[in-house]
Amino acid sequence: MSPLGGGSLLLAWQLKGKHVLVVGGGDVASGRIESVLAADARVTLISPSNGLHPLTKSFLDEPYNITYHDRLFAGVEDLADVDLVLTAIDDVAQSHVICSLCRELKIPVNVADIPESCDFYFGSQIRDGPLQIMISTNGNSPKLANLIRKKVEQSLPEHAGEAITKVGELRTKLKERAPGVGGAIGKRRMRWMIDVCTSWEMEELALLDDQMIRKLLDDGWEKNAVPSPGELGARSSHQAYKTTPNFLAPVVFATTLSFVAGAACAGLFLLSRRR
Amino acid sequence: MSPLGGGSLLLAWQLKGKHVLVVGGGDVASGRIESVLAADARVTLISPSNGLHPLTKSFLDEPYNITYHDRLFAGVEDLADVDLVLTAIDDVAQSHVICSLCRELKIPVNVADIPESCDFYFGSQIRDGPLQIMISTNGNSPKLANLIRKKVEQSLPEHAGEAITKVGELRTKLKERAPGVGGAIGKRRMRWMIDVCTSWEMEELALLDDQMIRKLLDDGWEKNAVPSPGELGARSSHQAYKTTPNFLAPVVFATTLSFVAGAACAGLFLLSRRR
Repeated sequence: MSPLGGGSLLLAWQLKGKHVLVVGGGDVASGRIESVLAADARVTLISPSNGLHPLTKSFLDEPYNITYHDRLFAGVEDLADVDLVLTAIDDVAQSHVICSLCRELKIPVNVADIPESCDFYFGSQIRDGPLQIMISTNGNSPKLANLIRKKVEQSLPEHAGEAITKVGELRTKLKERAPGVGGAIGKRRMRWMIDVCTSWEMEELALLDDQMIRKLLDDGWEKNAVPSPGELGARSSHQAYKTTPNFLAPVVFATTLSFVAGAACAGLFLLSRRR
Repeated sequence: MSPLGGGSLLLAWQLKGKHVLVVGGGDVASGRIESVLAADARVTLISPSNGLHPLTKSFLDEPYNITYHDRLFAGVEDLADVDLVLTAIDDVAQSHVICSLCRELKIPVNVADIPESCDFYFGSQIRDGPLQIMISTNGNSPKLANLIRKKVEQSLPEHAGEAITKVGELRTKLKERAPGVGGAIGKRRMRWMIDVCTSWEMEELALLDDQMIRKLLDDGWEKNAVPSPGELGARSSHQAYKTTPNFLAPVVFATTLSFVAGAACAGLFLLSRRR
């Protein structure tokens, strides 16, 4: 094995306009359905209705794009025109049949609880708008993946998702203004975007609106500069997030109080000796 | 679009024993090669040798599993027996040809810099042994993905990778001792593993050795209990990590000093008036 090895290839799979088959409708299946709906897949669900988890049921209503069949998996005809297959059923033999068919047809497949029948695994996930984070322990410990997910979640900058959305808009508008793939213009665009992202705080980027984006391109990109948020007239609705708790105040208070207490004690002592 | 939509399906793709074709050998390609080697893929690299990045060159030596062809992509014959294709070349027309061939053959493909020719995207990554984390902004801002990766990296518990390795070993040994898929035994195993992971700190889990794992199974699993690390005779080589900085000491010092100063001032004042 190579010194690097032992891991997986972490990917952001694209499912827009793709057709995903989910076999099974229980607890695990409901999580799978949620994950593929998040990627804008067209979903077909095959599962007897008596086994449907409440969350699975909730996805069968509008506005979700799910075709539902109240029955068991029927065979290879269920795989026609399918781009990805996820199964989460208790029937191990049936799971193996579905996996073999998928492998023959070269359809990527994940069979819950049977690692060797999986072309890919899921991990513990975080979502904040366009920001997605996956934590994988490569099958070693789902629970630790979960605990780490919680720590990671707490460490994320405020408004990270919003900042990413706004930077995406800025990037799109920059490409409209200065089009072209690769070469000098591509490099200059990339350099300028990096400068903006590193000079502005994440909370400041989250404040970008259409007017500020236009001004940032006019006064920044065109002049090869990066104006500060203040120079663009940023509102400061998020500024409350930037004040850090004041640890000094109680220390100053305690120190002052001690000084007074010390003075009082010494005074009383000396006055008492005076009489 | 569904209220959940707009994202990707984040996955941990399995490449052990799989054959990956990388077309191109430059900067971007070297990163791709590193990622697939991390997942134990068998790699074929096609790229004229005058375009090889130093990192790409370093992967051509032992112990890495790479077959190298010093030439351009030749056509469909280069895709025989290939499970995944990654291209990172400047020739846009050639990129489109490769993508079309892959789509016909149902081989998942990523064409660097041409999003519409990608079945999947890459993200910003963290690796610590069996722990892998991917941060994706769904193409909105690679730079912000990078900045967030740094913050996430700093937030990870000490020895997380080691803890995951050890818990994986514990889980494997538990399955040998109490085998069976699903049902009551599966549930009891899962419950007990969760109890261990939540009662022990990550640094403590990282200390598990063969002897402690055996004791944990004997005194814990068999008796339906979770002994503490101390009860199992854990060494404390990592304990230094657990001491938190003492914020109180300087406060106590300042307060005491102020008391003395106050007493001294009052004393001097009263004594001076005495004369």
